[in-house]
Amino acid sequence: MAKITPISGFPEWLPEQRLIEQQVLDTVRRQFELYGFAPIETRAIEPLDVLLSKGDDKEIYVLQRLHAEDHAEAEFGLHFDITIPFARYVQQHRGQLHFPFKRYQIQKVWRGERPQEGRYREFYQADIDVIGDGELPLAYDAEFPRLIHEIVDKLPIPPLTIGVNNRKLLEGFYRGLGIEDITGTLRIMDKLGKIGVEGVLQQLTDQLGLEPDQAQNCVALGQIRGEDSSFTEEVRALGIEHELLSEGLSELAFVMEACEDLPPGRVGADLSIARGLDYYTGTVYECYLEGHEQVGSVCGGGRYDNLASDAKVKLPGVGISLGVTRILGYLFGRGLLSADRSTPVVVLVALPDEESRLAAMDVARRLRRRGIPADVHHSPQKYGKQIRAAERRGIPYVWFFDPKGEDGHQVRDIRGGQQVPADPDAWTPSEEDFFAG
Amino acid sequence: MAKITPISGFPEWLPEQRLIEQQVLDTVRRQFELYGFAPIETRAIEPLDVLLSKGDDKEIYVLQRLHAEDHAEAEFGLHFDITIPFARYVQQHRGQLHFPFKRYQIQKVWRGERPQEGRYREFYQADIDVIGDGELPLAYDAEFPRLIHEIVDKLPIPPLTIGVNNRKLLEGFYRGLGIEDITGTLRIMDKLGKIGVEGVLQQLTDQLGLEPDQAQNCVALGQIRGEDSSFTEEVRALGIEHELLSEGLSELAFVMEACEDLPPGRVGADLSIARGLDYYTGTVYECYLEGHEQVGSVCGGGRYDNLASDAKVKLPGVGISLGVTRILGYLFGRGLLSADRSTPVVVLVALPDEESRLAAMDVARRLRRRGIPADVHHSPQKYGKQIRAAERRGIPYVWFFDPKGEDGHQVRDIRGGQQVPADPDAWTPSEEDFFAG
Repeated sequence: MAKITPISGFPEWLPEQRLIEQQVLDTVRRQFELYGFAPIETRAIEPLDVLLSKGDDKEIYVLQRLHAEDHAEAEFGLHFDITIPFARYVQQHRGQLHFPFKRYQIQKVWRGERPQEGRYREFYQADIDVIGDGELPLAYDAEFPRLIHEIVDKLPIPPLTIGVNNRKLLEGFYRGLGIEDITGTLRIMDKLGKIGVEGVLQQLTDQLGLEPDQAQNCVALGQIRGEDSSFTEEVRALGIEHELLSEGLSELAFVMEACEDLPPGRVGADLSIARGLDYYTGTVYECYLEGHEQVGSVCGGGRYDNLASDAKVKLPGVGISLGVTRILGYLFGRGLLSADRSTPVVVLVALPDEESRLAAMDVARRLRRRGIPADVHHSPQKYGKQIRAAERRGIPYVWFFDPKGEDGHQVRDIRGGQQVPADPDAWTPSEEDFFAG
Repeated sequence: MAKITPISGFPEWLPEQRLIEQQVLDTVRRQFELYGFAPIETRAIEPLDVLLSKGDDKEIYVLQRLHAEDHAEAEFGLHFDITIPFARYVQQHRGQLHFPFKRYQIQKVWRGERPQEGRYREFYQADIDVIGDGELPLAYDAEFPRLIHEIVDKLPIPPLTIGVNNRKLLEGFYRGLGIEDITGTLRIMDKLGKIGVEGVLQQLTDQLGLEPDQAQNCVALGQIRGEDSSFTEEVRALGIEHELLSEGLSELAFVMEACEDLPPGRVGADLSIARGLDYYTGTVYECYLEGHEQVGSVCGGGRYDNLASDAKVKLPGVGISLGVTRILGYLFGRGLLSADRSTPVVVLVALPDEESRLAAMDVARRLRRRGIPADVHHSPQKYGKQIRAAERRGIPYVWFFDPKGEDGHQVRDIRGGQQVPADPDAWTPSEEDFFAG
């Protein structure tokens, strides 16, 4: 075995961390299913032209067989998100799916970007999307902030601030101002958080050639926030008129109203949100960890009309993606999330002597039969050593039995030290003793 | 969007199939945890020299960034199994792990081989291994057949026949016969099932230059089977003596005895099992679906002494790998495993009219709050149409409510047609109505 060093950007967790990650993914999945999303997985690879049709080509890892012909063109690459593979999946299996098709997908994705804190080259995304056949009611756009809020509320992570905006609102406003390069404007406005008001004003005028008052208006719009539908008045006060703007305003107002029973501070209109990817056509979402905004966006998505559609069929969709690895990697790295258990085992059966090994395995078997994760200590060490081995792994109970059958069975809660007689076919730990899964 | 065709060897399931796959993976995982295995995941890529140190290099997919320098050497490849990455993980994180380290790992792997029925280029493996620090009792070898039997017993798949053999037994026997090329002999003996007795005899004499009676003895050994430890006598009757043979015989007898309470036909000694990979050093396992042996081996593994060890540290291990995709792909393909539900939804809330959408969403929310997966029908169609939409997806219940509040709420079991008044804050479906997860 040769190199055994970490590879930058490809995180690996210890078992105690993976147990937490798994618990997080289980909670996410359960919540997705409660909301009626069905699971799918797509293959890890896509044809390069599918990947290149919507993506930033610098990030793609291409794949080749080790002994491919020297000059063979690479045909496939690893997916860098799961939205584009999902759109391809829907087109490919359209005849076998029921629409609106609500699906979730929790998979790893790969990006060949320069690794830095909070940026990974391999990471988990947890995506939900719904795709309609022909049309898709706005009610679906309103469902996502609630769903994301409810998930995060159940996870051992800081609360999320969910920002919502609408691309029609932005595009309508820009068009109302007489701006033609909508994509260019969106791209620069997207940097408001990073380069600030002055930087954005300068780029809008220098790079796009906007008039100073056009640029000022764009920035004014981008600074509007609100937790109810009051943002509508603020936008109207800027005095810009456009049909698309009105449509976007009423869509965003609908989403905000549908979320108004959520706790304060969780969901807000944030008119700075643009989302870099150019396929969004309506609602857009962007979420930050409260108090840890420096991590960057950890969840985002939006409405797209043309991602899965083709010339003949219109398949509009809306989706959101939760960056599980980004959140956990940050929290693990700062010591904000740690575990005291490195195994799902609830009971360690102590091994009195080598001859009792099969008897000890039988005790473990009887516990397992009733759903209690159990294991036999590997070696007939002194009991003190066996108890310390359980302690180090965070196993709550050690089981003792008398191989001669005289003293029967006893179980010891090593957190408190109480030791009581117990029957391997009847004794049951409390629910909190299990690693919540 | 360009190509939307399937890619040979990269299977993708429909939601109804993925629901089954997920249920299978959950059962596997729960069983692994009951036996005290802790979860880890390793990155999808490994340095090429790690992959090449133990593998068949023709199968490796190498990775390169799309815009890498033209002549950059590829450094990394996708893993083709999870045993080698696990051995690397153990070496890398040794100081932070507790030994014996029992871990499970359920991940996709990639092999660039020629696709054919039952062979995939991307597929799930579910692996368990235990690695000891310095030594590892044989009791662990005896645990795997039982664990695998218990898993398969809980899955909607045909029973497995678990064959067990021992490399020391084979090597000792071959050495006792005076054979020197042990690896070559193993490689040819491994083909017994494929090319038959005559083919193997011919290759042993022609390719390896064995004497006819040496070859005959090898084949005679390879034909021994048994469900108890009677195989020992049959081997001894061949009259070959070697220390390693005796050791292997007693190890295999120990494993067989520890499994003797399992139902007949499930676990047997099978002295033809060699396992192609050359890192095994003791117990080896190979499992087939009963009545579907033509699929090939769907589960296999064994004891290895030198995979994770290095010059300074001995880290012997034993593991087994279950080919989940191979099993499911075969059963899906033959129509031997199918599902009637394409969604986890238990209740579809009927939408009486567009104005009642928020009220309908509220009903769904109240059901979800109590853990019942619920969804709102997307459009205020005639109730007959909404019921048929639920039927098509396999949703058992449709919920009706009177938007004017006069008739209250009713729930209809669409499998039987019964419709009864129900309270969205109290009504609960039976356990079997949930998609078992």
